[in-house]
Amino acid sequence: MKNSLSQRTINRLTQYHSILRDYVKKDVKNITSAQISNLLDIDETQVRKDLKSINCKGKCKVGYNTLELKDTIESVLDYKIIKKAFVIGAGNLGVALSKYSKFSEFGLEIVALFDIDKDKINKSVENKKIYPLDKIKQIIDETGVNIAILTTPNKVAQDVAQYITKAGIKYIWNFAPSILVCPNDVKVWNENLIGSFLQFCAIENIT
Amino acid sequence: MKNSLSQRTINRLTQYHSILRDYVKKDVKNITSAQISNLLDIDETQVRKDLKSINCKGKCKVGYNTLELKDTIESVLDYKIIKKAFVIGAGNLGVALSKYSKFSEFGLEIVALFDIDKDKINKSVENKKIYPLDKIKQIIDETGVNIAILTTPNKVAQDVAQYITKAGIKYIWNFAPSILVCPNDVKVWNENLIGSFLQFCAIENIT
Repeated sequence: MKNSLSQRTINRLTQYHSILRDYVKKDVKNITSAQISNLLDIDETQVRKDLKSINCKGKCKVGYNTLELKDTIESVLDYKIIKKAFVIGAGNLGVALSKYSKFSEFGLEIVALFDIDKDKINKSVENKKIYPLDKIKQIIDETGVNIAILTTPNKVAQDVAQYITKAGIKYIWNFAPSILVCPNDVKVWNENLIGSFLQFCAIENIT
Repeated sequence: MKNSLSQRTINRLTQYHSILRDYVKKDVKNITSAQISNLLDIDETQVRKDLKSINCKGKCKVGYNTLELKDTIESVLDYKIIKKAFVIGAGNLGVALSKYSKFSEFGLEIVALFDIDKDKINKSVENKKIYPLDKIKQIIDETGVNIAILTTPNKVAQDVAQYITKAGIKYIWNFAPSILVCPNDVKVWNENLIGSFLQFCAIENIT
């Protein structure tokens, strides 16, 4: 079913999921589309449309069962299909992402970190070992992991991207504010934090 | 002009800007819409439409002047209007964002961090001081800053959000994977990292 959902719907579903997780934790049994709409500042019609697209129907005046809806979203978004990834760059951002609790709920499992700093190599972050970058080919060959989360300093991002794609990485989630030049069979997703902030400014007219 | 641009156009313009910054640094004088399209995997017609919307016209076969286009994007996106913000939570993510070079290029200036950890308080990150959280009201009153970048652990995010909005924060850029309940006059922008990753998976069919 996931393939029939638009990118933006997928993004919204993960946001609904965050609410549902909190509600389930607090043992709240039901939630209405109006409540979701209010919390996220998303049009209520849109919320209902999104939930209908994953075959969830609310009951009049009661709303949706929180646990059922949470499970459905997880299932639709393939949380059980584990996507293993490496973090490249064990600086503050790399370590923060390695600890980010929400990833594992949707099947993103960070299995190891890589760095060139001798003081970091062989240490661990949440039981994930930090390896020297020049070991990456060997570890790709051993594990089959082909997704990298790139969190190096900007000035080395392109060189590192070239190095890891040569070693076998096929997907790069890029947090460096550089646009990477990669071979055609490598797919890059740029996490554009300043773009996100400027969208916020534009919507809320922050000046 | 910024107000007439869609959110998605704003986001794309910041990505074009990253390319232009690299090109200007390498002293490359011109860039074509085809090159931008290739690097970002965005349809070329879209690139041309975006650049036309900010009154930039390329020359046939030569393309756009990189320096001019870079300056125009910065100007259209109000990079000169400094938006001052606090980082709440001086953990790995908070520190990483405080060091993020790209923010200042678009006028986002992080002026201070806040934490409750005595080992962090009074230390500095890139010349930005870490204050105790209970000083926030005083520092808001002194500085007029009303934007907070929330990077606390998830389990305290709601309580901290309540505390800082009571102290005067009006805009929260939320990196915690929680949906915050805030007063109506407070605007929250959820940075949804797992949603972003799942969009990548959906587009590239990563399973």
